[in-house]
Parts: sequence; C-alpha cells; structure tokens
Amino acid sequence: MNKLALDDLLHRSLLEDIGFGDITSEAIFTESHTSQGFLLAKQNLVLAGIQVFSRVFALLDDQIQISPYYTDGTLVPAGEKIASMTGNTRSLLAGERVALNLLQRMSGIATHTRRYVEALKGFSTIIVDTRKTTPGLRMLEKYAVTVGGGKNHRYGLDSMVLIKDNHIQAAGGVTAAVELVRSQGACFRKIEVEVENLLQVQEALSLGVDIIMLDNMHITMIEQAAKMIDGKALIEVSGNVVLERVAQLAAAGVDIISSGELTHSVKTADISMRLV
Amino acid sequence: MNKLALDDLLHRSLLEDIGFGDITSEAIFTESHTSQGFLLAKQNLVLAGIQVFSRVFALLDDQIQISPYYTDGTLVPAGEKIASMTGNTRSLLAGERVALNLLQRMSGIATHTRRYVEALKGFSTIIVDTRKTTPGLRMLEKYAVTVGGGKNHRYGLDSMVLIKDNHIQAAGGVTAAVELVRSQGACFRKIEVEVENLLQVQEALSLGVDIIMLDNMHITMIEQAAKMIDGKALIEVSGNVVLERVAQLAAAGVDIISSGELTHSVKTADISMRLV
Amino acid sequence: MNKLALDDLLHRSLLEDIGFGDITSEAIFTESHTSQGFLLAKQNLVLAGIQVFSRVFALLDDQIQISPYYTDGTLVPAGEKIASMTGNTRSLLAGERVALNLLQRMSGIATHTRRYVEALKGFSTIIVDTRKTTPGLRMLEKYAVTVGGGKNHRYGLDSMVLIKDNHIQAAGGVTAAVELVRSQGACFRKIEVEVENLLQVQEALSLGVDIIMLDNMHITMIEQAAKMIDGKALIEVSGNVVLERVAQLAAAGVDIISSGELTHSVKTADISMRLV
Amino acid sequence: MNKLALDDLLHRSLLEDIGFGDITSEAIFTESHTSQGFLLAKQNLVLAGIQVFSRVFALLDDQIQISPYYTDGTLVPAGEKIASMTGNTRSLLAGERVALNLLQRMSGIATHTRRYVEALKGFSTIIVDTRKTTPGLRMLEKYAVTVGGGKNHRYGLDSMVLIKDNHIQAAGGVTAAVELVRSQGACFRKIEVEVENLLQVQEALSLGVDIIMLDNMHITMIEQAAKMIDGKALIEVSGNVVLERVAQLAAAGVDIISSGELTHSVKTADISMRLV
Amino acid sequence: MNKLALDDLLHRSLLEDIGFGDITSEAIFTESHTSQGFLLAKQNLVLAGIQVFSRVFALLDDQIQISPYYTDGTLVPAGEKIASMTGNTRSLLAGERVALNLLQRMSGIATHTRRYVEALKGFSTIIVDTRKTTPGLRMLEKYAVTVGGGKNHRYGLDSMVLIKDNHIQAAGGVTAAVELVRSQGACFRKIEVEVENLLQVQEALSLGVDIIMLDNMHITMIEQAAKMIDGKALIEVSGNVVLERVAQLAAAGVDIISSGELTHSVKTADISMRLV
Amino acid sequence: MNKLALDDLLHRSLLEDIGFGDITSEAIFTESHTSQGFLLAKQNLVLAGIQVFSRVFALLDDQIQISPYYTDGTLVPAGEKIASMTGNTRSLLAGERVALNLLQRMSGIATHTRRYVEALKGFSTIIVDTRKTTPGLRMLEKYAVTVGGGKNHRYGLDSMVLIKDNHIQAAGGVTAAVELVRSQGACFRKIEVEVENLLQVQEALSLGVDIIMLDNMHITMIEQAAKMIDGKALIEVSGNVVLERVAQLAAAGVDIISSGELTHSVKTADISMRLV
Repeated sequence: MNKLALDDLLHRSLLEDIGFGDITSEAIFTESHTSQGFLLAKQNLVLAGIQVFSRVFALLDDQIQISPYYTDGTLVPAGEKIASMTGNTRSLLAGERVALNLLQRMSGIATHTRRYVEALKGFSTIIVDTRKTTPGLRMLEKYAVTVGGGKNHRYGLDSMVLIKDNHIQAAGGVTAAVELVRSQGACFRKIEVEVENLLQVQEALSLGVDIIMLDNMHITMIEQAAKMIDGKALIEVSGNVVLERVAQLAAAGVDIISSGELTHSVKTADISMRLV
Repeated sequence: MNKLALDDLLHRSLLEDIGFGDITSEAIFTESHTSQGFLLAKQNLVLAGIQVFSRVFALLDDQIQISPYYTDGTLVPAGEKIASMTGNTRSLLAGERVALNLLQRMSGIATHTRRYVEALKGFSTIIVDTRKTTPGLRMLEKYAVTVGGGKNHRYGLDSMVLIKDNHIQAAGGVTAAVELVRSQGACFRKIEVEVENLLQVQEALSLGVDIIMLDNMHITMIEQAAKMIDGKALIEVSGNVVLERVAQLAAAGVDIISSGELTHSVKTADISMRLV
Repeated sequence: MNKLALDDLLHRSLLEDIGFGDITSEAIFTESHTSQGFLLAKQNLVLAGIQVFSRVFALLDDQIQISPYYTDGTLVPAGEKIASMTGNTRSLLAGERVALNLLQRMSGIATHTRRYVEALKGFSTIIVDTRKTTPGLRMLEKYAVTVGGGKNHRYGLDSMVLIKDNHIQAAGGVTAAVELVRSQGACFRKIEVEVENLLQVQEALSLGVDIIMLDNMHITMIEQAAKMIDGKALIEVSGNVVLERVAQLAAAGVDIISSGELTHSVKTADISMRLV
Repeated sequence: MNKLALDDLLHRSLLEDIGFGDITSEAIFTESHTSQGFLLAKQNLVLAGIQVFSRVFALLDDQIQISPYYTDGTLVPAGEKIASMTGNTRSLLAGERVALNLLQRMSGIATHTRRYVEALKGFSTIIVDTRKTTPGLRMLEKYAVTVGGGKNHRYGLDSMVLIKDNHIQAAGGVTAAVELVRSQGACFRKIEVEVENLLQVQEALSLGVDIIMLDNMHITMIEQAAKMIDGKALIEVSGNVVLERVAQLAAAGVDIISSGELTHSVKTADISMRLV
Repeated sequence: MNKLALDDLLHRSLLEDIGFGDITSEAIFTESHTSQGFLLAKQNLVLAGIQVFSRVFALLDDQIQISPYYTDGTLVPAGEKIASMTGNTRSLLAGERVALNLLQRMSGIATHTRRYVEALKGFSTIIVDTRKTTPGLRMLEKYAVTVGGGKNHRYGLDSMVLIKDNHIQAAGGVTAAVELVRSQGACFRKIEVEVENLLQVQEALSLGVDIIMLDNMHITMIEQAAKMIDGKALIEVSGNVVLERVAQLAAAGVDIISSGELTHSVKTADISMRLV
Repeated sequence: MNKLALDDLLHRSLLEDIGFGDITSEAIFTESHTSQGFLLAKQNLVLAGIQVFSRVFALLDDQIQISPYYTDGTLVPAGEKIASMTGNTRSLLAGERVALNLLQRMSGIATHTRRYVEALKGFSTIIVDTRKTTPGLRMLEKYAVTVGGGKNHRYGLDSMVLIKDNHIQAAGGVTAAVELVRSQGACFRKIEVEVENLLQVQEALSLGVDIIMLDNMHITMIEQAAKMIDGKALIEVSGNVVLERVAQLAAAGVDIISSGELTHSVKTADISMRLV
C-alpha cells in the first residue's frame, strides 16, 4: 500500500466529515478531556484495515494510542474486542466516523472475499476483483480483497492490456487487435483478451496471449474452452459470478474468477466503537 | 449540489482509474475514432446521477454528447435505454468505468431508498440517511437519498448538534449537556438528543430540544415515548431499521427513521454502457 | 476548529509568503543559528489565535518552542508580553509574518466583538457574525468571534435555511417559500425568514419558523414586531448595526444582532514579534 | 495578475461558502430559473476587482453574463450601478457572497489607497504596501493597491533583500550584512536596509544599497537623513504612517512611504448586489 | 496520455513560473494587445509534445490559436517552422517559457531515442526507458520515448514485478523470490528477474519468468545466456548502454535494451518561439 | 529553500513512482524487515541535494536514518561513500528511485556549474542560470546552481523586470519601455534590458537601468559595449555560452554570464544506492 496516498485520502475524508468543527463535542468536552474505548466486532468478520483505522487518529492527534488485538486477515468472532484505544476525547470522536466507515467497508470486503476463497478450497483457481471499485477508494478496496485471500486484477487502465469487444470490432478482429497492441511494445504488460465463442478462443490461443477471458459463457462452453486452452493461457471467467457457482467453474478448469460485486456491492461488517 | 466539489471528486476519480493512460484503447483506436453508444438499465431502478454521469465525460472531452432519456428520480424499467451518447471513442472508454461506478452506486441508493418511501406511504414519517457514507462520496450519496425520496440528516459534525451517550455522560446528564451546547450559542443549529429510556425522554422534552432520538428501543417503549412527546419534539428512531419494520414505527408516531444501511451497504443498480 | 483544515490554510499561506525562500535570512543566518524572542501586545486586546500562531511555526520546524502566557479570550493589556519563543532563527523569521498576520486579525476581531458583548451586558441578546468573512479564512474568523464572546451564524449555504426577499418573490410569498423548503425535508436545519414588514412577520410567525430576521427596520417597527412575536420565534436584527445602537435593540426585545462588520472591516490588533 | 492563481483562490473560496450546496435556493428556485440583477455602489468608491467578481460566476456557470459599466480604477459615485448581470438564479446566489466579499475588500483597499495618492499630489513620493496582507489574498490585495494608485513593495520573502535589525545584529553590522548578501549573488534583486540612526544611514549609503528604510524616525532626523542621502539611494519611511503626515514626509524628501494598514485594516467598500 | 494529469502538471508549472504575474509584460502590453508568432526548429529534431505545447496556452487563454505544421514523431529539419500562433500578447509571453521548456525536453528525448531506433534497424530488438525520469514528468517523458520509437518499461513500482538482487538475497534465492511473488497472485503482471550469472539465468528460466534482465554482463556471457534462453523468455540488457554498442547486443540475441540515459540526461532540442 | 514547497514536490513525486504500491517488495520483504545501505559516488562530483535525498525517506518513514558523510557543495571523489543509511527495507526501496533521481540531477547541475566557476577563477564575473529549468523543479535546480558556485537569475516572471525585443518593439523603443515599467512603480525590482546593438546600449545606459543584456553579440561588439558601459550598469551576456568561451567574455568586462544549459541539458551525476 502507498502510505502517502492513504494519508491524502484520509485527510480529505476527515475534512468532509468535520467541516468547520465538531460543534457538539467542542461544546461539551474540555480540550484536555480524555477517554478510553474499544472496538467491538458485532458479527464474525475477517478484519481488514486496522492500520487504516489507526492512521485516521494519528493524522488528527499524535497522542492517541490504538492497541489492536488482531491483525488484518484474522477471523474475529462476533463479540470480540478488536482493539482498545485511549486519548483525547474530542479527537477520538472527530475521527470515529471516518475510521469506522473505512474499517467496516474494508472488513466487509475481506469477509465476503473469504467466502469465495473457502468455496474454492482444494482448487488452484483464484478469485479476483475488477475496476468496479468505489471512486477514490480503489487502493483500499483492492487491498481488502487481498486480505480476504483474493487477488488483484489490474489497478487501472494503464497496468495491463485488456482487449474487449469494442477493441476487437474496431481493430477488425482478435488478431488485428493483439498485433496493434504488440506493435506498441506491450511486452512489459500482460495481454488479456475477452472472447465470446470458441472460434475466438482458438484465435486468441494461436496468438499466445497471456489470459483469455470467457465472457458470459455457458458452463458447457467454458468446459470446451478449457480443454482447448489446456494450460497454454490462463482462463478467466467473469459475469454472473455467485458463490454457489464457483466450485463448478473451478472444476471446469477456470484459473481466475473475477467478480465486481466484491467491491461494488459491499455489505459492511458490523463493528462499533465505544468510549467508556 | 456543489458543482465545484463534484468536479474535484470526478477529477480525482479519473486520475485514479486512468493513471498514465488507457494503454489498450490508445493502441487500438486512432485519436479521431468516434463511437455511438447507449446506457441500458438491466434491472428496474430509480435513476440517480445522470448529470454526474454526463459530467465525467465533459471533464475529459467537451465534444462528447450525452442525451439522457430520463431525469433523476424516475423509475426506469429493466431493458430500457437511459441515455444515448456519441463522441470520441478513447474518451468514452476512458470515462466509462468512473461514470458507471458512480451512476450505479447512486441509482442503487435511490432505488433502495424508494422502497422505504413506498413502505411509508400514507404516513408523514420520513426516511433519512446518516453519516455512514463512503468517505469522499458523501455529497453524492446524500443527494441520491433525496432522489429516492428520502431526506438528509446532518451533512457533518458541524451542521447540527447531536448529543449522544458519551456527551451526556461527560456533561453529567442530559440537562447539563444541552445547557453547555446552548451556552455556546447553538441557536442557529437544531439540537437533537439521543436517549435510552423514558426518564431521559422526559428530561429532553422539558429542555425543549428539537429532536429526540430513541436509541435501540423496543416498540412498546417507542410507543410510550411517542405519547409522552406528543408533537412537542420530533421523534427519530435509529438502529435495526429494516424495511419490514418501518410501517410499524411510523404507526407508533415516529417522525424520522434513520438508516445507515441506505449508504453503507449499497447494492449497486445494474446498468451497462454499450458502444455500437 | 478543524485542525486539518487549519494546517491546509497555514501551509498555503506560508507558500504564498516564502516563495522560493527567504533570500535575506538565508544569506545572513547560518542554518543552525537560534534566537529567542517574544510577542508583545502594543494595545489592549482580547487575544485570539495563539494556537494558530504556534501552529505556523510547528509546520515549518518542529523544534521551535512557543510558550504562551495567555490563552485565547483573555484581555491582554498594552505592553504585556503574550508569549516567548525560542528556536532556529531562519524558521522564526520565515513564519513571523504569516503568524502575525493571522494573530493580529483574529485578535482584532475578538477585541471588537468583545465591545459588543460589553454593550449587551445585562441582556440575553447575542451578537453574531455573518457570511461576510474573508474568503479562505471563515473558520478562523468565526472562531475569533466566539473568542470575543459572540456567536456564529450559519457557516455556509449548506448549514441552515435562510429565506431572503429573492426567495420569497420567486416562491410567491413567505408561506410558499417555507413550504417548499419543508417539503425538501429541512427538519434537521433551522429555518430563518427575512421579513420587511409586520404583515410578513405575522405570516412567518404563523408558519412556526425558528428565526425571524427584521431587515433594516426602524426601531419603532422592531418594537412592534417583537411584541407580536413574543417569544414564539427568535428575532434577529441585521443591517446598520453600530455599537451605540445595540443596547436599544436589545431593550426592544431583539434576541440576535448580526453584524458583517465584525469580520469584513477588521482593525487588526497591534502585536509585534521581537527577536532578542 | 496570475489568472491560474486567481482561479485556484476562487475555487477554494466557493467550496468554503457553498459546502454541500445552497439548501435554501435549491429548494426554492427550479434548476432553470433565471434572474437579472445589478451591482450598486452604496458609497463613493474606487472600483477594484470587477474582473475578479465576474470570474467567480464564470467558474460556477459559463452562461452567466456580467456587464460592467466601470473599469478598475474608476471613481464610482454612491448610488451608481457598477454592473448588470443576468443568468441562472441558483448560480447567481451561489456566487454572490464570495464575489461581493472580494470586490468590497478590493475596492475598499483601492479607495483608501487613493486617499494617500491624493495627499501626495504634487510630490514624486509613492505610497506602497507591505507583506501585512491577508493570508491567501496577497495577489488580490497588492493588485488593489495598484488600482488605487499605490505601488507594490516586495511580493514575498524571495523577491528582494530587506535587511532588518535582526539581520544587522546577527551579521555584526550593516556592512557585514550587505556583504553577506552580495556574496550570495543578489545582483538581480534590490537591496534595502532598515536603519535606526544617521550613522547607519551613512554606512548604508557608503555601501551603495538601493533603498534605505528609515525606521520610526522623528521628522527632524528624517530630514537630516534625506539631505545626507541626497538622491544616492531611495528613501523609504515606514511605521506610524497616517494620512495627515504623508505630505510632510514627502516634503522632507522621502521617496517611498509604506503602510501596512492599506491591507491589514481594510474598511470594505459598501457595494450590494440586487436581483430583480 | 492522461489529459487530466497533463492539465494538473501544466497548471502547477505555470504557477511556478508566473508567480504574482509577469510584471514586465503587464507594464508594457495593453490587456488587448495581440501578436503573431511562430515556433522554429534550430536543429534537426524529432518533434514530441506539440499538443502539450498548445495545451499550455489553452489553459491560460482559450482565444489563442496554435496551428502546428508537424505532428509528433515527424523529423523536422533545422530552420523549419514547427507551428504558427496568434493571440493575446500577455498570454503568449506568460506561457512561452513553460511551453518551450516541455517541448524542447520532449523533443530532445524523442530525437535521442530515434538514434537508438536507427541503430537497431534490421533487428527486432527494442529500446526502452526506465524509472530514471524527472520527478513529476514521467508521463511526458515516457510518451516522448514512444514518439521517438522506443517503448516503455514499467510506469512505476505497481505496474510489474521486477526482482532485483536485494529481493533475491532477502528471499534466499531466485526461486524463493519468484514463488513469494506468485503466491501474492501476480498473474496479471509480468515477472522480470535481474540475474548476474548463468546459474541464475538457468534458475530463472526453469521458473518460467517472463523477462530475464542480464545485469552488467560481458558480451560473451550475454551471448551464452541468449543461447541458453533461446526464446523461452525475453532478454533485457541494462547498464552501460551506449549507441555504439546496441547493434552488437541485438546481434547477440537481446530482445530489450533499456537505457536510463534516455530520460535522465536529456539534451533538449533547440527550438525557439518568436513573436513578430 | 522553502521546506514546505519541497515537501509538496517530494510527495507528488513519490505518488507518481509508487502508485498503488511496490508490488515486488511488498511480496518479498516482511513489514518489519530492515536493511543497511550506502550511497556511492561513481564519478567525481559536486554534491547537491543531500538533504533533499534524506527528506524523501523522512516523508515515507520517520524511522529511517540517513547519515551523510559530505555536505552540499563538497567535491566527492569517484568511489567514495556519500552517506550510509539504515531502516525499513520496504521504505528504503520505495524512496530509492525518487531520492536518487533528484540527487543525481542536482549533483549533475552543481558539478557542471562548478566547471564554469573554475573557468572564471580570477575574474569577478559570475555564472547564472535562467528560467530554462525543468517545470516543477525550479527551486531545486536553482539551488543546485548556487551549490555549484553559480548565482540565480530571476526566479520567475514576477521577480524582476526583463525587457526583451518584443517589449521594446511594442513600446516603441528602449526608452518608452523603461518609462512604462517605471511608471508602474518598479522601484523594488531591478530593471534589465536586452539590447542588440551599441545604439541600444547607449540608450539603456542613459536611462540608468540596472543590467544590460548583450544578446548574441560578437566578442568585438561586446568589448566595445563594455567600454561604453564602464561600470555604470552590470553587463550580462547570454546565448551560445560554452565553457571554452567564458574566460574570454570575462576578460572583455562582462559581469554576468547566463546559461540555460546549466539546467535544461543536465548530465546527471552517477550515484548509486546499495543495500547490503
């Protein structure tokens, strides 16, 4: 993770929430009032973002102490304390909402990703994210996917070549598209091609692309494609990915299952922060 | 909505996704290649953010034309085209993901909020959001709630007084807390107090606060509180709010139902953008 | 106060003043040269911004020590030392101008506000600021008003409803305007209406608005309005507010006196910083 | 003036004032509602900042038309319209406060500066500003001084050499200080020395510095110094500069009179914007 | 190229150069003064950045017309006009230096890169850049390399895996390092390993890495390595790359020659802008 | 140097290089892995930027220790260690490239500038830079010139008056141009005029300008001009400045030699960072 990018994000998020100041807490707590508190898991969850949580408070007040009891990636049972904290009350309350909003979202992503990882146990197939992340939070959301045991697809439009149907049409075919990309010297970036039928699978295969994405194919066709490819390229399946279906896909020989839902439709993990 | 704040957010989001450039599309499409496309609703949805969607492309390329067929707040049936678009292909593909990520999220929020509004039909009770928004997207998410028919609770820590249990404890009681806040001249901001029992309801009522939040109370106690308050303050209920329960709450005399889930656990609306 | 917003403001201010560097001091003082100094009140003043003053230097150099002798809100007599300081000479001189410019302005505002507060002694009437603040400095200027004993009107266009003549005309009357605002769910924000005659006072009153602003009314009409309102709404008077007139306004039953001059036409307090 | 720096400043100022949106106007005016209005001088004033005023609205809405009747530097009599405007009502109200706050401040500075210029009529002596500007607004405030007929002293710490008492003490005398500065190659920047007595005047003169600042000297000593200097350096007087005293200073042979009060204690010009 | 990132860079660069304003031109040219001019190649050069050049002026003044006679990648002979321009004189002079500084640097890079490309004519070997770019200008410098006919190595630390000696030592060998990287799911990013001897070449080869970088090897060893690798991985050579040596490297079977000097030690192309 | 501006620059540079994170090092080094290393001069060089180098790491990780063995301005022989370092390995590798890119560039500039200074030994003539700096790096590049023994010409368009041929033409002659500038009150900024022939030299001289720039003149004419000027203004020569020619120019009486090549065509110094 890029710590400087994290600080920029947290800084902006705190400005958004605090505005001109926390008028309630500034009226009620003296400037030197301190509190102790803890972070409580209210559901079973895979923890993700505990250092992000801590960093929120560090930006506001370098005297606040956060002591985590778990590290990212650990399964925390409902009812367990995740961390304890102590410090200036105004600072604790000023950072609470931003810190929790991020921790809950990240842990929600990790917890959900872990379900996919469990469903794929015994297979070498991996579950990966997409670019369907929340604008502004991609780094954190992709990190949370890895904490859950998933892997990261490309970070953005610049980090690998992904040839989709529009590209294929404009170029005049899979071969033409791949050749255009290669003539730009893409040898430092993987090339993935999204295909819609077995003819295109064959064409992509003959071009030696790195990854072939089978787009919205029926399981029967996926199985045929997998046999055709037979380890000569990685096979990714995308679209309509639900938990119930992943073992079947893995059994069919799919190497990579990508799911936008991992990050675009997050159910946040239930975590609360309590001062005592 | 603050248009300048929107531009800042979209600018950052596009930088995040595009990075050094869209290496696939720059290799395949010439600089002058143009495309036409449309936006398709793949589920029934309440549209929210169509101007945000358009603005993404305007920031990238002032030649792109987006023609919306619906305005925010309209119910769009599955299968309908939401808008058509035409312009430079590289620009359309460079903006697609950010534009869709936001539109899908905003429409998801509006669609879900509309369900609550429907469930409250016939009551004057309103459904409102919280500060449990995605860091960086609060303005857009709160806007989407209003598009769905909900209302906005406070924007941030500076926009009203909300006295919670920690404040009450530190001040030494509800009365002391309210007095501290009033002595700071809070007469331009509403005062809301979160209470846990009927004694506190009575105390808050006698202080003339604007809104009394009943925190995690059983429905029986909510009914008692509502009778006690009897229009002398607004009544908000928060916590464990699910769709099935809101009519019961409204019938009990609750004025405001707040739900963090409206924004923190969004199921994005299924919308796709297709170039032809 | 929002500390992160303060840091952003100070950072920008220092960049503005220092540019490529302090070419005089860098030529004359060695990198390790240290100095001691103090801050001197050259007039009677109400101190405001001593922590802002200190923070300027902390951003430049975390080794600088500032020891304040007074806290914000205290009356400091002419000739008294406000603080002593010690540290790297280049850093002290690089921060001096920005730190003083802010401290003098903030103390000027607090000192002037205090005069109003004194003039209102014995009344419950409060003196409040407006949005006529210096662009970029609103948070600091509104804070200085509170240090002087005044209170803060709304922070910006998003923090309460203020219906003015343009709104009333466009809506077609006070009632229509208030209803439009209420239908947008403004129950978390106070509603204030600016009125020009007693008919409008009556109309606003019947709508149960929170605050009625009497705009440029003669004292006789203000007295009549106050009797009519009789505690059923707060009364604000704005326009032509001078120190000599505030007791009369208070005696007439006005609750809130707002003055743009508190922040838009500041006479800065005379404070100097001396190195020894 | 640097237009890009102006845009940055206006953008920040609008974000500060608008926050999440103008909740009053968005509730009352439809998105397409337009208004006409004008800008009215409510006192005699020297106009400064009319293009800044216009630019505020251009950033919000490129459809707004502002037609100025006067240009910067013109004396506008009380009661005259300064400009007319037409455009979207929400945009006009969203920009009004920031645009006016700047225009009033800038015109206040220009109007006050003009008084000094009038008082110096017949002399070649110029009135100049200092670094005692409002943090964040230096470019605009220094521009306003020139509109009033004053000139600009250095923009910041990097734009000329100004040797003050601390520098002289640290270096071990005027000569040593000037030599240190010259050895750093300051030949592209003017050198000014602040002196406290005639011995120092003599020393500075012998070093061939460009400008000698007479710090808080009695008029008699200023006259002696001026005779001693006799055109071989420019003479600046700073400190305790009031309107009544400037002709006397000019008559004594002072070339430059600098006044921090021009920018640090501005009485804003009374200008109002009215929609019709 | 990412246009929004370009605008940010140009905006910052113009602020850096213009500061508080162009005091010479503002004193001499009226606000409406216009000029015509042209851009002249004073050496043979490969043009790169003509759109960047134009964009500088567009940010300052949307009325300026730039008419390029050549497109990026074209060889422009000494003495030829590259573009003509017309518009506001102040704007032309305010943008001149930044626009030229970038165009000269970019064309310098493209011109130098073209020499390598010429030297490699007849070979399939490509010349690529490194991360030794000027901080802040990486996007533009890497673009200029492609204009010259070179290709881009990774954009930054996040866009591919490059295992160097430190990584190998820490992991305990090439195999361990590659396995660690693969266990993190690096299947969307190419893996390159920097090796120092033939044993390591053999080890990397057996792991199926994408690219093997031969670090500072003698030509004899490079030839041996190339035979050993025999197309089963791409071969990159880095270090001590000079124009005279590249054909020899290509003949030895090297696929990729990387040179930091392409961007870190640029001789800018001699281009001048003249107003007439 | 302005430390806050430095931090902004380094922050941006690190974001550019690190992106979403160093995927190689994060996979291989544990979070607590530490390393020791050193910085090695691989050529004779004048060190410049060692504090900039250190600051890069301080921004990433305040636990990293950098111990420099040399200070800026020192000649470091090839083969010598410049500094040693110890700290977290991930942080050391994340900062390495940015830190080196800047240090190598700055030391390259200082080393090259020193050659000019050596060539001018025995003369009072100084070597100065221009505005032909790398956009974004002006402060660092101008600092490096001073480290090498050169001096800084103006920082930007706002820091002195430089009247060039376009200005002279528009104004209608040297005299008119200088008078226009003086009427704007330029007495705090030096005035330099670029002249093309001896008539203009004479005209500029008679106006008492501070510096006369002889533009692309033959050495014979330079000698004539120098005699004509005879110490009554400083003489700057610009254009076609090469190392071999500077002594001749100095001998001709030139005070200032300016060279854009000092910063626009830098050969970076060869320095490497090695972890052990």
